[in-house]
Amino acid sequence: MTDWFTVRWEDGAVVLLDQRKLPTEETYLRLTDVESLARAIEDLVVRGAPAIGCTAALGIALAADRSPAETPAALAADVESARERLARTRPTAVNLFWALERMGRHLDKGLANGSSAPQLRADLLQEARTLVEEDVGICRSLGLAGVSLVPDGSRILTHCNAGALATGGYGTALGVVRAAVEAGRQVSVLADETRPFLQGARLTAWELAKDGIPVSVITDNMAAHLMHQGEADLVIVGADRVAANGDVANKIGTYGLALLARAHDLPFYVAAPCSTIDLRTATGADIPIEERGRAEVAEFGARPVVPEGVPVRHPAFDITPASLVTAIVTEKGIARAPYGDSLAALLH
Amino acid sequence: MTDWFTVRWEDGAVVLLDQRKLPTEETYLRLTDVESLARAIEDLVVRGAPAIGCTAALGIALAADRSPAETPAALAADVESARERLARTRPTAVNLFWALERMGRHLDKGLANGSSAPQLRADLLQEARTLVEEDVGICRSLGLAGVSLVPDGSRILTHCNAGALATGGYGTALGVVRAAVEAGRQVSVLADETRPFLQGARLTAWELAKDGIPVSVITDNMAAHLMHQGEADLVIVGADRVAANGDVANKIGTYGLALLARAHDLPFYVAAPCSTIDLRTATGADIPIEERGRAEVAEFGARPVVPEGVPVRHPAFDITPASLVTAIVTEKGIARAPYGDSLAALLH
Repeated sequence: MTDWFTVRWEDGAVVLLDQRKLPTEETYLRLTDVESLARAIEDLVVRGAPAIGCTAALGIALAADRSPAETPAALAADVESARERLARTRPTAVNLFWALERMGRHLDKGLANGSSAPQLRADLLQEARTLVEEDVGICRSLGLAGVSLVPDGSRILTHCNAGALATGGYGTALGVVRAAVEAGRQVSVLADETRPFLQGARLTAWELAKDGIPVSVITDNMAAHLMHQGEADLVIVGADRVAANGDVANKIGTYGLALLARAHDLPFYVAAPCSTIDLRTATGADIPIEERGRAEVAEFGARPVVPEGVPVRHPAFDITPASLVTAIVTEKGIARAPYGDSLAALLH
Repeated sequence: MTDWFTVRWEDGAVVLLDQRKLPTEETYLRLTDVESLARAIEDLVVRGAPAIGCTAALGIALAADRSPAETPAALAADVESARERLARTRPTAVNLFWALERMGRHLDKGLANGSSAPQLRADLLQEARTLVEEDVGICRSLGLAGVSLVPDGSRILTHCNAGALATGGYGTALGVVRAAVEAGRQVSVLADETRPFLQGARLTAWELAKDGIPVSVITDNMAAHLMHQGEADLVIVGADRVAANGDVANKIGTYGLALLARAHDLPFYVAAPCSTIDLRTATGADIPIEERGRAEVAEFGARPVVPEGVPVRHPAFDITPASLVTAIVTEKGIARAPYGDSLAALLH
């Protein structure tokens, strides 16, 4: 779409835009081993459920590419060890596991077909690149499906970054915004800065400004006031996992925002590809919530903002109950309550 | 109370703890002219409605002290010019205007009594020091009045800093916490970090840790999740102005927090001295909301966190409607709805 990208394969390496450095520096990391790639996911070089899925798929291809194995069985063992490492990086986003499973199924098929080790390497790389390309297409379809929810003139409040930087490209929540703009609608975005990692201020504002879409940044705690002042018309967020009953795991702060939207009678939309919907997870209570470390909350750059010795909390995600979700937008269409039925219908 | 203080008179100067430097540096600014003092208020060296009132009163004393006037009328003119400058510093906190009016009445009384210029100087300084000392006493009375609202074992969520650092000493919301601790109750505090200026992370955590009161810091957007997890029992916040009908102006984010408390059936208490209650302001809609500049939201230290050219919003306060306020704790007792009656009764 533009002069930058979130994640891609380049000459034997997985190349990631280092999102920790945005918005001030646009630098790319070139990763040539699985351990470095896993740490890049853990350290938030790349984040966002679909982008983590894309990166993990390329990580499997990287493991195969770097493996010195000469037999299919030895190659499969190296890939399995990479899969185990990548599966331990982040627990909440289900796309990670979805992508690893898809790559695993592809490997199994190759093994069953009697492919050679070099053929398996080539097939896994092709499958991972296809997955990334498909992710962009899925986001475009999702965006189109959501356009009807965004009237002309909408002021759209969003949280965290569910944009091109969180996917293979184009974005989910911001995909709906982009599709509305491409459909000729005048819209503007209010971006929650999204503490502690500031994905809204640093990433959402950066990528929307790059595309010339009007965006203003607010601190998370301004949302209620601006809703009350009539300065927001609807909320769209992404998701890290959607349970079978429609409960949504997403960046910490999403649940509060959903409550505030309800209190002000604003629609609250979740934009998520089908790979984020996990029918094997019954409800939000079954979704593991990642607890991250102290530094992201207690320090800013190298500067402490919490007194030494004072504990902090750092749940990285929360659960928004399905009852607060007006609709879930996917690449296959829009699901509404009761979500148990509508999500199952979309996925089958 | 301890080895530090928020604001006091020392040898011809107003001395302020520089709250911008906390929690990493404990440094004091010694201000010897009204313009520097006014800028210190504007730049948030000192903040918190009662502390701003104390500082402004000392500022009037400083103006008198520094004035070369030899006649009472000339001194009164210098004081009036200081009053005008100080009144322009911050629009929302009513204690500023309350303190300036009290100092003005004291001056008028002295003029009517035929006091000399040196006598007026001494009287104004005495009045300002009395006001600061009274503020501490008021906070202690307020704290005692609020103890009944804090059961043993309470986990208290607070926003911004309504503590010793926001008053002459002891605090309002944190005065209730301190009084509960002094009454032998085991309590703990969850402090919203309070973007953008981080008064919760930097100031509330600092002063509670100094007193050995258990405190943990959370980002503002974690409050809803922790309430849902059952980790908060009640909310207590301060106020910058309380309207005659019980609407409350306080730090941005307070209104959202009140909505979240209501959604989780938690009591939402406001702790404010009577000087914060402004019967001349009918409702919250009549309270001016200060809009502050870009830098506090868009930069951290000197590091930009919002892309260049992307606008930010920065309302510094919001209005919590009386309907969301469980009770207002003052030094004269506890007011409950209907606040039109209960607040008027407390103040007369």
